[in-house]
Amino acid sequence: MTTTPAHVHSATCGCPRHTIHHAQSHHGWDRALPPVLHVAPGEVVEFEVAEASGGQLSPQSSVDDVGRLDFGRINPVTGPVFVDGAEPGDLLKVTLLSFEPSGWGWTANIPGFGLLADEFEAPALQLWSYDPATLAPALFGAWGRVPLKPFAGTLGVAPAAPGLHSIVPPRRVGGNLDVRDLAAGVELYLPVEVSGALFSIGDTHAAQGDGEVCGTAIESPMKVALRLDLVKDRPQAFPHFVTPGPVTRHLDARGYEVTMGIGPDLMAAARAAVRGMVERLAARHGMPPVQAYLLCSVCGDLRISEIVDLPNWTVSFYFPRVVLE
Amino acid sequence: MTTTPAHVHSATCGCPRHTIHHAQSHHGWDRALPPVLHVAPGEVVEFEVAEASGGQLSPQSSVDDVGRLDFGRINPVTGPVFVDGAEPGDLLKVTLLSFEPSGWGWTANIPGFGLLADEFEAPALQLWSYDPATLAPALFGAWGRVPLKPFAGTLGVAPAAPGLHSIVPPRRVGGNLDVRDLAAGVELYLPVEVSGALFSIGDTHAAQGDGEVCGTAIESPMKVALRLDLVKDRPQAFPHFVTPGPVTRHLDARGYEVTMGIGPDLMAAARAAVRGMVERLAARHGMPPVQAYLLCSVCGDLRISEIVDLPNWTVSFYFPRVVLE
Repeated sequence: MTTTPAHVHSATCGCPRHTIHHAQSHHGWDRALPPVLHVAPGEVVEFEVAEASGGQLSPQSSVDDVGRLDFGRINPVTGPVFVDGAEPGDLLKVTLLSFEPSGWGWTANIPGFGLLADEFEAPALQLWSYDPATLAPALFGAWGRVPLKPFAGTLGVAPAAPGLHSIVPPRRVGGNLDVRDLAAGVELYLPVEVSGALFSIGDTHAAQGDGEVCGTAIESPMKVALRLDLVKDRPQAFPHFVTPGPVTRHLDARGYEVTMGIGPDLMAAARAAVRGMVERLAARHGMPPVQAYLLCSVCGDLRISEIVDLPNWTVSFYFPRVVLE
Repeated sequence: MTTTPAHVHSATCGCPRHTIHHAQSHHGWDRALPPVLHVAPGEVVEFEVAEASGGQLSPQSSVDDVGRLDFGRINPVTGPVFVDGAEPGDLLKVTLLSFEPSGWGWTANIPGFGLLADEFEAPALQLWSYDPATLAPALFGAWGRVPLKPFAGTLGVAPAAPGLHSIVPPRRVGGNLDVRDLAAGVELYLPVEVSGALFSIGDTHAAQGDGEVCGTAIESPMKVALRLDLVKDRPQAFPHFVTPGPVTRHLDARGYEVTMGIGPDLMAAARAAVRGMVERLAARHGMPPVQAYLLCSVCGDLRISEIVDLPNWTVSFYFPRVVLE
């Protein structure tokens, strides 16, 4: 973390009062980290967010760079921001106002990481280029185009437990939630565990499906503007959010191909559903299986179709047909 | 199972050649059951499907009837149909042509059954009345309206293993899949394990969310017309299907409220997400928690938002705002 001062904008309604540059980032969550900014509830802040490699990958990277990734520098988050008056038991309301994407991104299969890590052991890298102004669907080689919906994978506040906590897993205070619908217009509510909340954001994605099955999305640096508010004295177990409208209309127009996994273990069923789709895409489109796996991660959705018909559950993987047709 | 002969229609294109009445039903799957009909690949069959209580509940039922349900008579399926030429290793292609709903339905909390069975131990019953012609959203008491999308919860073929297999769990040959998108226009592919496939259908629903979290949907008798085809020699692990278009536009216009469960166990996370939504609906709308639970089952969706951020997964429960706003 550097000590670069936060850039302060003029205080016009809806415009950010503050910009926090991506150099003001940290790795992992720790309540002892000094805030880079203090804000009053209701203030708007703009964040510069690095992509999840923290600068280790670039538009010029090759697959060899994936094998050399330093996990200690993965997923930097910009912040933390101290919200005046926030106390344990409150909810921090985060209103996502806008995303300003950069136009490039990457998706990787990182050895040891991902739902089918044991079946895809070699590193793989897909670089993406897209128009940040129009957000037209991004070309995926000669196979198709992936509709985009920028969002932040990581939004969280500091856990109460002292010490440094890994950035990788999400927790009840948020963090690496990787919910593909945390996009512009959403109101997200995070349980506060420490005074000032200590909010940070990172891991912006140009597109991701439910599950993020290969472990990465279209990892893409962006600027994000958001408003921080407080709901006092509202303890709740986990975060929740509200979307202003539909969440899949940018890619559902032609329907879906759907594979299933069925059995008594949700994880095994999820793996079977994704494996089934990878096999279908590879067989029908002549795509190397690892490419199909990356594609599934950026646009396909894992759903629990039924979780009550003892002893077997149905997990389904929905692949949007518009991508390849 | 009775021996009522199948009703034979004239053989015009797209019209059913055969109608199988709901009296021609069976409980459980068994390769030894005699077919009620033989068809050639490509033939269209109309099925009368009873609701999942098999006549034990009616529009006049009370909650006391839920406590008296005989599980031996649950979820009758109409069939089986022998498809000429079907052999193990083939796929049975089921094209769902039309649903003719009845206009009434029920949703129940059945003790011992459902994702939160340990938290909702008492029986509960919600009766529904809807217009089968317009399929306008169905009134849910004074609280709101649930958009409808008729589909079949149970579509399957006989397992190879001899003997009687419970109707409750789905298997790789299909059965009680309870996938809310198996609606008109869908092409479903089921792995065949026995000669003739022995296809049956049941458990028609007027609406259900992903998860069917309380254990029941809007259980509603219907007629279903479908075409049975074969794809020869195409072994695959589990069923798959293709939808002709979007799957949530009947209810997503106003977006969603979303609760989360986060942790290392998908089942515990799913329970937390649903529990969170039940608590929200009860607190905000003055709804008895069990009613909120039933409502979640008929219109809310369980999704796996991320399944890769070791060691914690994010499961989200999406409740469509149009229902209560």
